[in-house]
Amino acid sequence: MGQRPKDDPMQHARPLPSYLVNRYRGWKATVYAENSGWYHRLAEAGQQPRSMVISCCDSRVHVTSIFGADQGEFFIHRNIANLVPPFNPDGHHHGTSAAVEYAITGLKVAHLIVLGHSGCGGVEGCYNMCSGKAPELEEASSFVGRWMDILRPGFAALEDGTDEERKRQLEKRSVVISLENLMTFPFVKSAIEADRLSIHGLWNDIGEGVLEGYDPASDSFRPL
Amino acid sequence: MGQRPKDDPMQHARPLPSYLVNRYRGWKATVYAENSGWYHRLAEAGQQPRSMVISCCDSRVHVTSIFGADQGEFFIHRNIANLVPPFNPDGHHHGTSAAVEYAITGLKVAHLIVLGHSGCGGVEGCYNMCSGKAPELEEASSFVGRWMDILRPGFAALEDGTDEERKRQLEKRSVVISLENLMTFPFVKSAIEADRLSIHGLWNDIGEGVLEGYDPASDSFRPL
Amino acid sequence: MGQRPKDDPMQHARPLPSYLVNRYRGWKATVYAENSGWYHRLAEAGQQPRSMVISCCDSRVHVTSIFGADQGEFFIHRNIANLVPPFNPDGHHHGTSAAVEYAITGLKVAHLIVLGHSGCGGVEGCYNMCSGKAPELEEASSFVGRWMDILRPGFAALEDGTDEERKRQLEKRSVVISLENLMTFPFVKSAIEADRLSIHGLWNDIGEGVLEGYDPASDSFRPL
Amino acid sequence: MGQRPKDDPMQHARPLPSYLVNRYRGWKATVYAENSGWYHRLAEAGQQPRSMVISCCDSRVHVTSIFGADQGEFFIHRNIANLVPPFNPDGHHHGTSAAVEYAITGLKVAHLIVLGHSGCGGVEGCYNMCSGKAPELEEASSFVGRWMDILRPGFAALEDGTDEERKRQLEKRSVVISLENLMTFPFVKSAIEADRLSIHGLWNDIGEGVLEGYDPASDSFRPL
Repeated sequence: MGQRPKDDPMQHARPLPSYLVNRYRGWKATVYAENSGWYHRLAEAGQQPRSMVISCCDSRVHVTSIFGADQGEFFIHRNIANLVPPFNPDGHHHGTSAAVEYAITGLKVAHLIVLGHSGCGGVEGCYNMCSGKAPELEEASSFVGRWMDILRPGFAALEDGTDEERKRQLEKRSVVISLENLMTFPFVKSAIEADRLSIHGLWNDIGEGVLEGYDPASDSFRPL
Repeated sequence: MGQRPKDDPMQHARPLPSYLVNRYRGWKATVYAENSGWYHRLAEAGQQPRSMVISCCDSRVHVTSIFGADQGEFFIHRNIANLVPPFNPDGHHHGTSAAVEYAITGLKVAHLIVLGHSGCGGVEGCYNMCSGKAPELEEASSFVGRWMDILRPGFAALEDGTDEERKRQLEKRSVVISLENLMTFPFVKSAIEADRLSIHGLWNDIGEGVLEGYDPASDSFRPL
Repeated sequence: MGQRPKDDPMQHARPLPSYLVNRYRGWKATVYAENSGWYHRLAEAGQQPRSMVISCCDSRVHVTSIFGADQGEFFIHRNIANLVPPFNPDGHHHGTSAAVEYAITGLKVAHLIVLGHSGCGGVEGCYNMCSGKAPELEEASSFVGRWMDILRPGFAALEDGTDEERKRQLEKRSVVISLENLMTFPFVKSAIEADRLSIHGLWNDIGEGVLEGYDPASDSFRPL
Repeated sequence: MGQRPKDDPMQHARPLPSYLVNRYRGWKATVYAENSGWYHRLAEAGQQPRSMVISCCDSRVHVTSIFGADQGEFFIHRNIANLVPPFNPDGHHHGTSAAVEYAITGLKVAHLIVLGHSGCGGVEGCYNMCSGKAPELEEASSFVGRWMDILRPGFAALEDGTDEERKRQLEKRSVVISLENLMTFPFVKSAIEADRLSIHGLWNDIGEGVLEGYDPASDSFRPL
């Protein structure tokens, strides 16, 4: 490639911290070395993941750890509060919708799992915003606020309780609303109806290590 | 919560496949049990990740594995082709911009790493679209096409070569364009200038297990 | 501050050797520069280490290297032979007990790891002392001898073998006795019972680079 | 060894978390493999460190990183606030004095470096205790309080200033008091007078990455 002028903002890019370089070298010499045949095949044959997972960016949520999954198994989209916006093909950039479209129509995954979690900072922000306690999130220029608008209908439907109880309800509603919005995508709906896809809702209690699954018959979450 | 009518589309939600339930139960009895003190603290004290990583949804890319990272270490956003759109506070849903805003202004991460990879299906789609070989991606209703528009300026700048060489160039350009777009976010720029944040570009050859780092002085990637 | 009289013993303090000044300058220009955002955050937000490690002062034991850890990850106490004395709140200076108290009640670490090692000079001194071959260590004025008294119960329990075998046994007993003594601290015991802390015993063969973990069920060490 | 009864408190000992096992395996396959000759020699010939370092347990202080040091170079004792108590051969356990005795009389190190640092939690505790703001640290049963008693003379000598300024002064006094107390050990004093040992005081600003050295002529610290 070329050479960048000295006042180019990209001159700010830095080498990777050396402790991460060392860890990568360790991975290369062990995990990679023991699985290089698999990595070669993954590179040549492309990915054929069985499932797509939509989870939060939160550093405490590791779906591959919880499910003992290895490279090639889950196609994973992670965003703030594991949200899927409603179907809206308006020609703008829609990262989540693009990921769902790619997984369903391109990769033809068989499962689509939405995973919520306890102590979600994005959900708490939405709760505070809808309670009138976070006016800064109401501003048009707040990316987090505008993203959390997707969850706003969930706030209106909360049952009575303490703030803590209602935040937890809203965390679980973030999963249900995402599932509901997924059903507005024609290619999701048709894949389900053709029995080529199933959708699943989960919520993870980080401290207790508990997973609860969404049961549509009772519209509630139950421990697995 | 309530009860849903029988023709509600949400009745399509299914229980988690039992092989995943079984793996979760194994994780709970081993990894969780050996680290429960840490999980409790993560739940109570909240997350304080050192770094944010933006990587692809591709099932073959596991940043936590490569870097030996555990719960709490990386705040991870994953989308198609690890793209960051330019700063555009127009009041619409922007999942990637929301994740970046949350990480920089809320969590105050110290590093922001963009990780690209070989054989990226999103990048290949962009390459085909820009080469006139994928007209369906040009349609306004294509979420993948409109998302990959972010990478279009990269196609124009490709050097001569075979299709394979140029696709690889474009994969690396997806990292550089994301870094460039990150610099258009005022809160990213000011955090870098205040010496509170550094940005890093990486590209992973999946088959060979090689990591290359972006060097702004030569505007190229070099093996770590 | 003031000025010291010329016969003050502190006049013996010397400038740092220049080879170390040079290495520090190199670190400042590279590792520090690449991570300055992280260092700023560590300085402002304070430390939140996940684990405490108790290891030997021995120059051949680098726990951060073995575990690819960087600044902020391990709270590390190092003393001769990685020993923890029994709980004894008698109002005197207890450096090890203070470090454990600070880590558990202040920092609320989730793991407490005791790391022993091969060829430990402190353990060898204890072995010789208990075998009657080092009478100078039995003197009340011997700091090393009195410190190694903590390990004396381990000598009585050694199984038959050559001196080399029995020294190695005693090195591993230094880890187990420290773990046992840790359990006599009320705040350690209660943190474990509340599922907020786990304790771990390790022994490192320096020459072979082997780590063995303590297994309480068999009361023995096994390679990881 | 034997087998432990099921109600033995040691049954609480747990296997090492798997992310650390993985990182250790990576180290073994890279850093160890590349240096195994050196590790073998270290194991057979024993350690011959040039210097002893006394630093704080704080997770943000990595003397080996700052000085680019590798296995075998520094004999390192780490305790809360890098303190050395006065010489007091009373027959009790003295972990710090034992480490100093071993380094000077056994290993015959040529340098003894005391390294303090900014934002020291132990020093802050001492400051609050001496200011009457932390009565819990005055209790006889407080290990941290009784350990920080070593620094009490430093509080009395502080100059006027804001709390922040005076805490920083006290951090530097922790280095000077340790050096002064070292001079009360007969074997330290005689090694210095025989020109076999030099002592050095350092203070590290964690956020700025600055090292300051103690200058006895002016009784103050100056950037290296």
